[in-house]
Amino acid sequence: MRAAFQGERGAFSEAAARKLLGPDVQVVPCNRFEDIFAALRDKRVDAAVVPIENTLHGSVHENYDHLLRFKHPIVAETSLRIVHNLIAPPGRKLKDITRVFSHPVALNQCLGFFAANPHIERVTFFDTAGSVKHLMEHDEPGAAAIASSIAADFYGARILKKSIEDDRENHTRFFLLKRNAPKSAPGDTKEWKTSIVFALRNIPGALFRAMSVFALRDINLTKIESRPIRGRPWEYHFYVDLLAHADSPNARKALGHLAEFAQDLHVLGSYPRG
Amino acid sequence: MRAAFQGERGAFSEAAARKLLGPDVQVVPCNRFEDIFAALRDKRVDAAVVPIENTLHGSVHENYDHLLRFKHPIVAETSLRIVHNLIAPPGRKLKDITRVFSHPVALNQCLGFFAANPHIERVTFFDTAGSVKHLMEHDEPGAAAIASSIAADFYGARILKKSIEDDRENHTRFFLLKRNAPKSAPGDTKEWKTSIVFALRNIPGALFRAMSVFALRDINLTKIESRPIRGRPWEYHFYVDLLAHADSPNARKALGHLAEFAQDLHVLGSYPRG
Repeated sequence: MRAAFQGERGAFSEAAARKLLGPDVQVVPCNRFEDIFAALRDKRVDAAVVPIENTLHGSVHENYDHLLRFKHPIVAETSLRIVHNLIAPPGRKLKDITRVFSHPVALNQCLGFFAANPHIERVTFFDTAGSVKHLMEHDEPGAAAIASSIAADFYGARILKKSIEDDRENHTRFFLLKRNAPKSAPGDTKEWKTSIVFALRNIPGALFRAMSVFALRDINLTKIESRPIRGRPWEYHFYVDLLAHADSPNARKALGHLAEFAQDLHVLGSYPRG
Repeated sequence: MRAAFQGERGAFSEAAARKLLGPDVQVVPCNRFEDIFAALRDKRVDAAVVPIENTLHGSVHENYDHLLRFKHPIVAETSLRIVHNLIAPPGRKLKDITRVFSHPVALNQCLGFFAANPHIERVTFFDTAGSVKHLMEHDEPGAAAIASSIAADFYGARILKKSIEDDRENHTRFFLLKRNAPKSAPGDTKEWKTSIVFALRNIPGALFRAMSVFALRDINLTKIESRPIRGRPWEYHFYVDLLAHADSPNARKALGHLAEFAQDLHVLGSYPRG
């Protein structure tokens, strides 16, 4: 099994890939989100792992756009707590550290650590895991990095201090994509989730009508988000996650009902609740 | 009028502050979003400007959290297209450029430019505007920066190439906050928007009921977004923008109706549609 993800080896997305596909998955790092989707389309990989939302930063709209364009089905989801660790080459001690390399977003999520260590300089880098790689390949005296524990493992570095992030409530949700949806049995005991996208013209009550197709059939929703459609004032895309398999009799009726008045209704995939 | 914003002088948030408050506003840069809210609370500024959502990156949940905690009312909104320019100290020419400094997110939003100029190296920096400041204060041969045009103006740098971003559909929405809501006349001809937050227990149809309080009164919505409440499984916060002043008779009834079954209903502010 080969799975594409975005980032350097040791990125949080790689940790998500291993959580979704087991420790033995062969991971293929890509530069951009779009490259992941293309790699799956071109059969260079068997699966792809993409971040879709973060508790601090919201939905990754770009990946919703790619989901609509490439139409690779979502087959699983998982969630990962983003833990930032202070990492350095073996032998270096916490008291030796005078500079810390990482992505600016990660550096800014560890302000408590830097406030407690005002002598430590912050150095921006492209990538959290890439900063660990850099320190292992270049002689940077007094330097450490901020990254995931699997970045430390992968590059043979050491964790000097675990979990130095300010906010523990930093989770990212990931989707696993394949080229084809599995032949699933919607009737089995698993709790299924389905992600859909649709557009509505903003006539009063359009969203109320859209919600009614689920409420009238007792189908629960776990996510709803509107996004203005650029260049089409007053029209919106909606991302909705519902608790049912798209092929269950109830959901089929609800989605058929929704298609009567929603535009561009797409089922992005049905997958076990993660 | 003194207004706080997050970032270096010349940041996109400063451009938003000038769009909202006029060119003569006295701007006060802050390090963190939280600092902006505290500056307003402590009367060090008269207003604050915060980004709340971006068309590529979604909602800035952190600022919703601060809105709930500090309770400074939203009094206006605006939207800004994020235009990335290649900027260098005066006298430097496009053909001289061998390195470009900026925030990694900005560098990654100009991949077409770097593909067309493969000899140019990318150098990460904390801040887009800060990278312009750095080039004006340090001798960095062959270097340019990627930032807003007001960063070029402020630091006395020159724009070598305008609008080098890959995606023109990159807009950020900003809120203007004050310590007190203005005494407004909801009955006047302006089109008003109101932002609210509330929580729902995820019983089937709870969201449908919440939507009904607006739909049954012909109140249009322009945004809805759910966000799981951490540590309270099956409970969600909802961010909703509606097209009415919170003090209009219709909206008062709708919000009263919503408060009958929603938890923690907060009106974040009513403001003219931007």
